[in-house]
Amino acid sequence: MAFKALLFDVFGTVVDWRSSIIAEGEAFGAARELDIDWAAFADGWRAKYQPAMQKVREGNTGWVKLDDLHQANLLELLDEFSISGLSEAEIDDWNKVWHRLHPWPDSVTGLTRLKRDHILATLSNGNVALLVSMAKRAGLPWDAVLGAEVAGHYKPQPEAYLKTAGFLGLAPGECLMVAAHNGDLLAAAACGLGTAFISRPTEYGPGQKFDMAPENDYDYVADDLLDLASQLGC
Amino acid sequence: MAFKALLFDVFGTVVDWRSSIIAEGEAFGAARELDIDWAAFADGWRAKYQPAMQKVREGNTGWVKLDDLHQANLLELLDEFSISGLSEAEIDDWNKVWHRLHPWPDSVTGLTRLKRDHILATLSNGNVALLVSMAKRAGLPWDAVLGAEVAGHYKPQPEAYLKTAGFLGLAPGECLMVAAHNGDLLAAAACGLGTAFISRPTEYGPGQKFDMAPENDYDYVADDLLDLASQLGC
Repeated sequence: MAFKALLFDVFGTVVDWRSSIIAEGEAFGAARELDIDWAAFADGWRAKYQPAMQKVREGNTGWVKLDDLHQANLLELLDEFSISGLSEAEIDDWNKVWHRLHPWPDSVTGLTRLKRDHILATLSNGNVALLVSMAKRAGLPWDAVLGAEVAGHYKPQPEAYLKTAGFLGLAPGECLMVAAHNGDLLAAAACGLGTAFISRPTEYGPGQKFDMAPENDYDYVADDLLDLASQLGC
Repeated sequence: MAFKALLFDVFGTVVDWRSSIIAEGEAFGAARELDIDWAAFADGWRAKYQPAMQKVREGNTGWVKLDDLHQANLLELLDEFSISGLSEAEIDDWNKVWHRLHPWPDSVTGLTRLKRDHILATLSNGNVALLVSMAKRAGLPWDAVLGAEVAGHYKPQPEAYLKTAGFLGLAPGECLMVAAHNGDLLAAAACGLGTAFISRPTEYGPGQKFDMAPENDYDYVADDLLDLASQLGC
């Protein structure tokens, strides 16, 4: 089986959103002498992610890009953590922490190896501006930045997978979905894409209880992107 | 004036479609002992480009991506040049010559310099698959492959420019349209984008009579992409 394109989930699979947000929070908190549990802050922000997208999936809102969902969720979160007095520019900068997430240690080298023989595209719920900004900062060598915004549908809606393959001029079976999340891979497989599970057992912190292991029969199961590159002969 | 993103016309501005098609035609013709004027063939194919897109712009067809317009035009052209007996796979391969166009000599080095300080995105009428395939082969270092297909509108319709800026999260005035064609730049300027004219006086061959010089007051006028990089301080 030879896949022409590798389509990547990004948050959690390629970048470590939780540690990145905690690190920025701690620097922000130290500068302002705030006593905040930044791990709880990061987890709280992420917990609002799926419910916010669900409203879009249900068609009640029209399309809302992830930057805007993150911003609305951030405003709630600042209130919940009693952080006040931020200017509009400071709130916008805080929201853009998602543009500044750090890659896992294997991501840049792994993607660079995989890119030699494959088209590498994002298939993320992140919007184009977020993903382009992140890629330039982190050195993620995408051939194309695609996914939810360009497809007009958030994963795991089938249109997100099928339209991304379509933009690349490929049949679903010519594309390999690469993700650290069983739900994402299951939805991709239902659309006819190949599947690669990447193990990221600390994405949600030391107490993570889900997506610890592959729960289905995937085409590849890999420890990280370097391992995936080796398994694909790159 | 500091532009955050440079948006590129591709056919003619970044790649030399005419010489690339002539070269493939001559190799094909030699192998089959065909006596064809391949420059006329290339010009004939390009001449069918705008009329084909015009039908899409007028809304009579629904969206048709450029690969498919090229294919329909190729079938007419093969008939006009009395080239017969090609298999479906051979016709498809011929059509993909547009995926294999060669960059102008300054393009890769110029884009690489420009990329250090700017987001580089395509704003081409080419479809995503065509542009991704071309970029991988030619080494064009795009940060994002955007344009007509993703916007759902062919240039010079304003949506092509405005939606591309929107996907990048930028105001039109934060984007610099880079093109060798006065019409493209005029349409971009009408949408509020900055403009850079690149001189490509042999794009249409030695007898080229239009787009020989800038016909309006652009933000930049450059001999090639290296000259543009120098003018932008890259």
